[in-house]
Amino acid sequence: MIDLHYWPTPNGWKISIMLEECGLPYRLVPVNIGKGEQFSPEFLALSPNNRMPAIVDHAPSGGATSLAVFESGAILIYLAEKTGRFLPLDGRERYQTLQWLMWQMGGLGPMAGQNGHFLLYAPEKIPYAIERYGKEVDRLYGVLDTQLARKGGYVAGASYSIADMAVFPWVRTHKAQQIDLQKFPHVERWYNALFERPAVKRGLDLGKELRAPALTEEARKALFGQTAQSVRAGQHQPSPNV
Amino acid sequence: MIDLHYWPTPNGWKISIMLEECGLPYRLVPVNIGKGEQFSPEFLALSPNNRMPAIVDHAPSGGATSLAVFESGAILIYLAEKTGRFLPLDGRERYQTLQWLMWQMGGLGPMAGQNGHFLLYAPEKIPYAIERYGKEVDRLYGVLDTQLARKGGYVAGASYSIADMAVFPWVRTHKAQQIDLQKFPHVERWYNALFERPAVKRGLDLGKELRAPALTEEARKALFGQTAQSVRAGQHQPSPNV
Repeated sequence: MIDLHYWPTPNGWKISIMLEECGLPYRLVPVNIGKGEQFSPEFLALSPNNRMPAIVDHAPSGGATSLAVFESGAILIYLAEKTGRFLPLDGRERYQTLQWLMWQMGGLGPMAGQNGHFLLYAPEKIPYAIERYGKEVDRLYGVLDTQLARKGGYVAGASYSIADMAVFPWVRTHKAQQIDLQKFPHVERWYNALFERPAVKRGLDLGKELRAPALTEEARKALFGQTAQSVRAGQHQPSPNV
Repeated sequence: MIDLHYWPTPNGWKISIMLEECGLPYRLVPVNIGKGEQFSPEFLALSPNNRMPAIVDHAPSGGATSLAVFESGAILIYLAEKTGRFLPLDGRERYQTLQWLMWQMGGLGPMAGQNGHFLLYAPEKIPYAIERYGKEVDRLYGVLDTQLARKGGYVAGASYSIADMAVFPWVRTHKAQQIDLQKFPHVERWYNALFERPAVKRGLDLGKELRAPALTEEARKALFGQTAQSVRAGQHQPSPNV
């Protein structure tokens, strides 16, 4: 059994989709990031970066004790290597899959995250930042569109892989990112095809009842503006009087 | 022989350090990112995201033809799996290494990149963005300091690994990031120890004569503000009259 420490966001969906695709038994452990549950000592012991998702595999390969893994990209590799699925064990396709997984982890994810922040969450509208991240996300969609055109199928080539599962949940946020998918027809084709996969639908549905309708002041305090000192001092915790 | 498509920056240094640590023969192919060489059709064929580093291994394991890999995190895994070094083949330490590699790829690298942009390169000073990324980089240094305190040795545990090689080049930029290493004594101890490794020194020295002393207008145009359309239309290329 695998414990999935999770909240329904793009990085969380990567793992719920992968677990559903692999048919692995798992148990949902909600981490309400808007209430600051990612700062609890119990969660910190699993995920020292105060971020979900994280997993605990109570029956890891080749070992008796449980194994915790954090960072969505590392969890995807872990589950792929555990099951032997969605990441070839060697050869060219393995590294094509890993390079596009890294492209999502280091490029599309962080840059779409910044774009969303300045478009939706920042308390002031800052034209320079909105333009900077809007252009970069547009550029990244162009890279993805060219890749999907060239290969005709999936992000890393001819096979559905963990690279698709990493990229798809972020493309799901395209409307909030103010990206018009019609400008990127190969992305649109791929996106619509993935949406039809039953395991993808189940992964996206996991915990959808948990999502808050709007960003509260409490959530803003838990999500933004932490420093090394504030985390250490517990200042991330919403005041009990608020 | 491995071709290393490279420019002396933190992401480039990850790979020059790894190649030096492994003692693999390689050939430097400079990619002058300030002159827009990352947009050439030849480079794009290797690295469709227009970013260095990228490698071409002309003698990959188990295959006759050459293999190209882009994204520094994927190249590190490729070289580790090719040589059997700096990333355990299985077990707990493998995934500890991969999770901290991902932490660098998805967290420290992109956030330090944004912090550096708003501190050093943005043409206007934007207090909100400077505070946002300054706090986040400070928080990430706190996470790293706690991790290095707990394990007493290296980023992913008791062994020097590709996670150290990924994190170190970004910590090298701490002064530009306005991070005082004395606030993070475990990071400082680890940083100074790694600096003494001969392979790390050789990796950091690779191509240092190529670095331009200051950001020119030509470099600004090549480095910032690209979109899908501008890349397609070749508008990234500095005008021949400038």
